[in-house]
Amino acid sequence: MKLCHFQAGLDQPVFLISGPCVIESEQLALDTAGLLKEMTDRLGIPFIYKSSFDKANRSSSRSFRGPGLEKGLQILETVKRVIGVPVLTDVHEDTPLAEVAAVVDVLQTPAFLCRQTNFIRNVAAQGLPVNIKKGQFLAPWDMKHVVDKARETGNTQIMVCERGVSFGYNTLVSDMRGLAVMRETGCPVVFDATHSVQQPGGRGASSGGQREFVPVLARAAVASGVAGLFMETHPDPDKALSDGPNAWPLPHLEALLNTLKALDDVVKAQGFIEQQFLN
Amino acid sequence: MKLCHFQAGLDQPVFLISGPCVIESEQLALDTAGLLKEMTDRLGIPFIYKSSFDKANRSSSRSFRGPGLEKGLQILETVKRVIGVPVLTDVHEDTPLAEVAAVVDVLQTPAFLCRQTNFIRNVAAQGLPVNIKKGQFLAPWDMKHVVDKARETGNTQIMVCERGVSFGYNTLVSDMRGLAVMRETGCPVVFDATHSVQQPGGRGASSGGQREFVPVLARAAVASGVAGLFMETHPDPDKALSDGPNAWPLPHLEALLNTLKALDDVVKAQGFIEQQFLN
Amino acid sequence: MKLCHFQAGLDQPVFLISGPCVIESEQLALDTAGLLKEMTDRLGIPFIYKSSFDKANRSSSRSFRGPGLEKGLQILETVKRVIGVPVLTDVHEDTPLAEVAAVVDVLQTPAFLCRQTNFIRNVAAQGLPVNIKKGQFLAPWDMKHVVDKARETGNTQIMVCERGVSFGYNTLVSDMRGLAVMRETGCPVVFDATHSVQQPGGRGASSGGQREFVPVLARAAVASGVAGLFMETHPDPDKALSDGPNAWPLPHLEALLNTLKALDDVVKAQGFIEQQFLN
Amino acid sequence: MKLCHFQAGLDQPVFLISGPCVIESEQLALDTAGLLKEMTDRLGIPFIYKSSFDKANRSSSRSFRGPGLEKGLQILETVKRVIGVPVLTDVHEDTPLAEVAAVVDVLQTPAFLCRQTNFIRNVAAQGLPVNIKKGQFLAPWDMKHVVDKARETGNTQIMVCERGVSFGYNTLVSDMRGLAVMRETGCPVVFDATHSVQQPGGRGASSGGQREFVPVLARAAVASGVAGLFMETHPDPDKALSDGPNAWPLPHLEALLNTLKALDDVVKAQGFIEQQFLN
Repeated sequence: MKLCHFQAGLDQPVFLISGPCVIESEQLALDTAGLLKEMTDRLGIPFIYKSSFDKANRSSSRSFRGPGLEKGLQILETVKRVIGVPVLTDVHEDTPLAEVAAVVDVLQTPAFLCRQTNFIRNVAAQGLPVNIKKGQFLAPWDMKHVVDKARETGNTQIMVCERGVSFGYNTLVSDMRGLAVMRETGCPVVFDATHSVQQPGGRGASSGGQREFVPVLARAAVASGVAGLFMETHPDPDKALSDGPNAWPLPHLEALLNTLKALDDVVKAQGFIEQQFLN
Repeated sequence: MKLCHFQAGLDQPVFLISGPCVIESEQLALDTAGLLKEMTDRLGIPFIYKSSFDKANRSSSRSFRGPGLEKGLQILETVKRVIGVPVLTDVHEDTPLAEVAAVVDVLQTPAFLCRQTNFIRNVAAQGLPVNIKKGQFLAPWDMKHVVDKARETGNTQIMVCERGVSFGYNTLVSDMRGLAVMRETGCPVVFDATHSVQQPGGRGASSGGQREFVPVLARAAVASGVAGLFMETHPDPDKALSDGPNAWPLPHLEALLNTLKALDDVVKAQGFIEQQFLN
Repeated sequence: MKLCHFQAGLDQPVFLISGPCVIESEQLALDTAGLLKEMTDRLGIPFIYKSSFDKANRSSSRSFRGPGLEKGLQILETVKRVIGVPVLTDVHEDTPLAEVAAVVDVLQTPAFLCRQTNFIRNVAAQGLPVNIKKGQFLAPWDMKHVVDKARETGNTQIMVCERGVSFGYNTLVSDMRGLAVMRETGCPVVFDATHSVQQPGGRGASSGGQREFVPVLARAAVASGVAGLFMETHPDPDKALSDGPNAWPLPHLEALLNTLKALDDVVKAQGFIEQQFLN
Repeated sequence: MKLCHFQAGLDQPVFLISGPCVIESEQLALDTAGLLKEMTDRLGIPFIYKSSFDKANRSSSRSFRGPGLEKGLQILETVKRVIGVPVLTDVHEDTPLAEVAAVVDVLQTPAFLCRQTNFIRNVAAQGLPVNIKKGQFLAPWDMKHVVDKARETGNTQIMVCERGVSFGYNTLVSDMRGLAVMRETGCPVVFDATHSVQQPGGRGASSGGQREFVPVLARAAVASGVAGLFMETHPDPDKALSDGPNAWPLPHLEALLNTLKALDDVVKAQGFIEQQFLN
């Protein structure tokens, strides 16, 4: 599948969607996008910049939600123009979709909303590539129905994204089998390595996270076989205004990407023997 | 808490929210509401009629979604006027809330949407009692943050509703501890006995259900201690246009309610000894 | 089914298996057994005294394991003779079964060992009633195979016991549907209300527990419909040498049993409507 | 850690434990061991042959259990002598440990028995390397207590093995974070790629399996970082007498191992960046 300026798929090099969880300031956005572009260029990893203008589903209403739509879109437009990278942002049920779609290159739908039929259709109908996150409550084989709803709009650029499944309370687990199962949708499969280590609600009024497992799960997913990776990053995660506990520190990102790229090269050269056994 | 024409709480008789999942026709709505009213009057169970005008989050886009907003509200208004019962319906992110709030007595929010801050606030801001369903991905102690968001609008008539938590794929489990935990929100706690036996996505393009466990879980919840019960019913569940596999057959409902009322009387007369041990 | 001096089943009054987790001393055993006998006699609840001589599967090897076989059996024999109650103890793969069977009235097998074929058969072959705890890893419908193995020895006095199922890490959940499912084994179904609130390994080197939920789950199970209840108790759980955090305080037991007995009377008088829907 | 004729650890090439689940015949044992030895020699993968003489914990008592102790040990001894490979077998609570330890090179303990203190100690006390499988009900951080019990015997050659954790009913999930967590025991961590795709009890009287996911999970585990892999294999899994549905077909094994070896080389050359973030 063509995605922005590159091809995405199990037979293509792994791509990266990355950036700080929420847009904190124009300067931070430009700085992180610039560093990420240089880094991914060096490694030969196609890159899409991600950041949110409004975190509509924070655990508590006292959490920082972002700069809002207008200011957020303006910053994303600046990133796109100045740094020269495609940008992705997530939209919600009350987002003016056309306004967002006029600026960004890729739309993303939140995991909690994957079963909202009208919403998924409205987003897909914008005609941009869409990254659909699988709900924490959904079996991987049930993503096929979600994808069908999106495709009924005529949009063929649909990606599906694993970000962990509910496992008891306040914990997610990443089922690597799901990555293979979701291939059968025909969509590029993306693994979200930072939300997968979230501990939803695990710190009382905000979500916790286990940053130390980001590299473990990212390596596992790449070796399982994915089209792309999603990883939130921050120059100083302990000071991040959203999802700091599960963000991967930007100063350690190139080292991690280097390993992931090497694994991706190996596994894609070797092929996916399970395809002979999946019906 | 005052709810419609009665008092709701752990020190009050259990109330019932019931009706067919989706509004199939005016006649079916009137017939079921009439039978439910007579039955609950006989048993001394305060009653609210429930039915949906649009099932926005069906597994597949080929499923029946209901009569739509206008026709649906007209039928609910007729039920209310002709049968003389309060009515509840569920709303979604794209529902015109004021239109619905002008007709119904209680609003209900879907489990998948319990973390959508704007939505929860907008619904609560209508000033009607709200039944907030707990997400299948949420720990019971995390409902306190959801309730806080709703209460910030000034609405004090908030209920919380357990409807099962994700347990592996395509299955839910009902954790009766959660009913006690959610008491600490100060809201009346409702147990949804029919969605709790849903098998999400369990039949391919639609959800399955285990009707045979409805009485087991309903009895367990009443004995655990709840303010109210939610149970979808249908004169002939195998012909229901939505959620038939988990609906409880109307012809068997009075027998079940009779048992539940007797259990509720016993447990509320005896008191809840755990309150001494919960901090 | 005949069990010790009474009949056990869904059409019989609920019975109780109770006592301190581990035999701490002869005096404590006699005191607790005496109080439990008086209390259950007052309430008309058939009673079996339970205590362990060796906790073979403690989380850490530094935990107290009990008085050992010889001393333990001697104390159980004294309890039986002096107090006049039947006694139950749990056995392990290296327990000399015949020695234990010569003293006690009921044998119990640990949840972790429910899939050990030889063990289950050897225990059943002693010819005493056996309470088989369902593994935390087992689906309720799979207990049928365990029961089949036990019955192949010719023993017909088999009970099955729910004690929670794994739910993420360090937590169990009690699925009340399982109590109905396990009826289909034809065995009396017992609910273990104190191990169900265990948090396995939840306190580092020992297991934690949530005592406050014992009454909630016990009421839920009785209303779901069980033949018997299992509840560990202790005069002062905070000083108990094993499983204190989930033991129910003896001074609060009669109040709880009073409620449970009342619920059991109601539910068994009303009948189990789900039986018409279970195949 | 020294293991048989090689070094095992996160800084050493991945080793393989493999063979048919149960010893079906001497001929099959010799044939499979011979092919496995040649294959692993070609790939530079240290190899230990695995097969069971008695499957003591089959779902149903009508399943094939193996040739028994005497015949089984004789076959393992023949494999060892004729093929020149170290052999591993699993032991149970009623296994005469010294007899087995006199023949095999490595002992393995079943997942269900990981919390049986006496058993774990008795096995460790044989002085051979022991592969301890983590229970399906155990959190990875709780393996530390199991390892402590084993080490108290003076045995320093302890391995820990992940084989999936309970995830709802009849399903396991492999949590790759657990592989990193268990490193902190100081023991070589092994991933069991074939039992991890078991569906316990999932086919009624026997366990099902999802063979197609073996390569996915094996690749994920190797990229997460493990000392060794465990994979049951069979020349014709559909005819295997035990665990056929989850065995990996021997004719496809070399292709899979080739990929795994390449991934292991990459990841171990790159290092494990998470070690800086784990405390």
